[in-house]
Amino acid sequence: MNVLIVYAHPATDSFNAALCEAAGDEARRAGHDVVVSDLYAQGFGAAGGPVDFLDAVPDPFHYQAAQKDAALNERFAPEIAREQDRLRAADLLILQFPIWWGGPPAILKGWIDRVNAYGVTYADGTRFDSGIFKGRRSLLSVTTGGTPRRFSDEGEYGPIDKVLWPIQQLFLGYLGFDLVPPQVSYAVARSTDAERAGMIDELRSRVRDLVEAPYEARPIPAPKDLLAGVGSRDWSSKV
Amino acid sequence: MNVLIVYAHPATDSFNAALCEAAGDEARRAGHDVVVSDLYAQGFGAAGGPVDFLDAVPDPFHYQAAQKDAALNERFAPEIAREQDRLRAADLLILQFPIWWGGPPAILKGWIDRVNAYGVTYADGTRFDSGIFKGRRSLLSVTTGGTPRRFSDEGEYGPIDKVLWPIQQLFLGYLGFDLVPPQVSYAVARSTDAERAGMIDELRSRVRDLVEAPYEARPIPAPKDLLAGVGSRDWSSKV
Repeated sequence: MNVLIVYAHPATDSFNAALCEAAGDEARRAGHDVVVSDLYAQGFGAAGGPVDFLDAVPDPFHYQAAQKDAALNERFAPEIAREQDRLRAADLLILQFPIWWGGPPAILKGWIDRVNAYGVTYADGTRFDSGIFKGRRSLLSVTTGGTPRRFSDEGEYGPIDKVLWPIQQLFLGYLGFDLVPPQVSYAVARSTDAERAGMIDELRSRVRDLVEAPYEARPIPAPKDLLAGVGSRDWSSKV
Repeated sequence: MNVLIVYAHPATDSFNAALCEAAGDEARRAGHDVVVSDLYAQGFGAAGGPVDFLDAVPDPFHYQAAQKDAALNERFAPEIAREQDRLRAADLLILQFPIWWGGPPAILKGWIDRVNAYGVTYADGTRFDSGIFKGRRSLLSVTTGGTPRRFSDEGEYGPIDKVLWPIQQLFLGYLGFDLVPPQVSYAVARSTDAERAGMIDELRSRVRDLVEAPYEARPIPAPKDLLAGVGSRDWSSKV
């Protein structure tokens, strides 16, 4: 099984780094291939737009139209093409990040915005049950500053599933990934070493369960096949 | 009243640009001061970290500790300091963006991550009802690809309030901003010119209501005052 871990934290010695390391180690020990996209270490560009493409884009710029062209002609910028290849090869996708202001750090949101291009990871009519990643697995592994109580029906932040709904449902779910409950390491800054060790063990256990369960990957269609059934769209409409 | 519009779209002729323009125009016509932070035009850096600061950061890097130092000593990078000044001066904050994969484009998430520094827009114990922006106003003005039906209890994306919960509650609400329902321009790509004109009129009306309602701003405390009541924290704890 190919495991892709997308990891987003600016400090190399962070607890997030330790979680990332543990997840990869656990999958490797079970004999699987692990690739880590360490977005800060890679200097991954977060802001999506014309910079995603090798060629100058038409003016006016239409993001999805440019993505479709690049998908059919292999004209994505190298950092985008590399991450697309990794994502399309992944049987299990793990996102490891701290929750900042209710969501992933911008560098990870940028990975989501840019890598998931029209014609590469989705097209018209491929979503949720018909998403091209259907049957593949995903896991959000997040850390929080807040306590479990803050992330509850009584807390100001609301339940963690509500906070993570956009990334779970409108990103992973949309692509077709199987969804499992997120692995949440709460209130990390206020945790003891023993509690942290327990959080790492919990993540290892989650990864073990995900790689051990029976699994059969469906092939991911190439852009030309993914786009074959798609009618021409009117890209002149401004969004 | 000072109105800050933070606008995030890579195409200068986009419908988002038209909405941004209309919101600013409406506030100016009512006699208010309008500043637009056009993040793509400014080349705003999205990925938060050591780059946020004028000085080299200690190793190991701790984001909030570095923010606290920079807040007390005015050592933020120029693009961060400028946006912090704008945000702290804003009586009304409008965020104009397309929903991409369930959330704001990464460049706007980066503005949220980087500008909202510990000691500048919040400190310990300043959140929600005690947030320092309490009484100030905020408005999310978003565009979607999906139809209203998709953003409903029956739709795959869920109600728009659920999708926008993290940015409404865990960002704007956390800082203390008054929350109003988002202004949503649905299914823009499939809308007629007349429908688009209607969406622009609706946004103008929302802006008019927000700037016309009675309002009394509380001063935003300076970092040294904001941090005065804060005990020393143990920054050695990795997160």
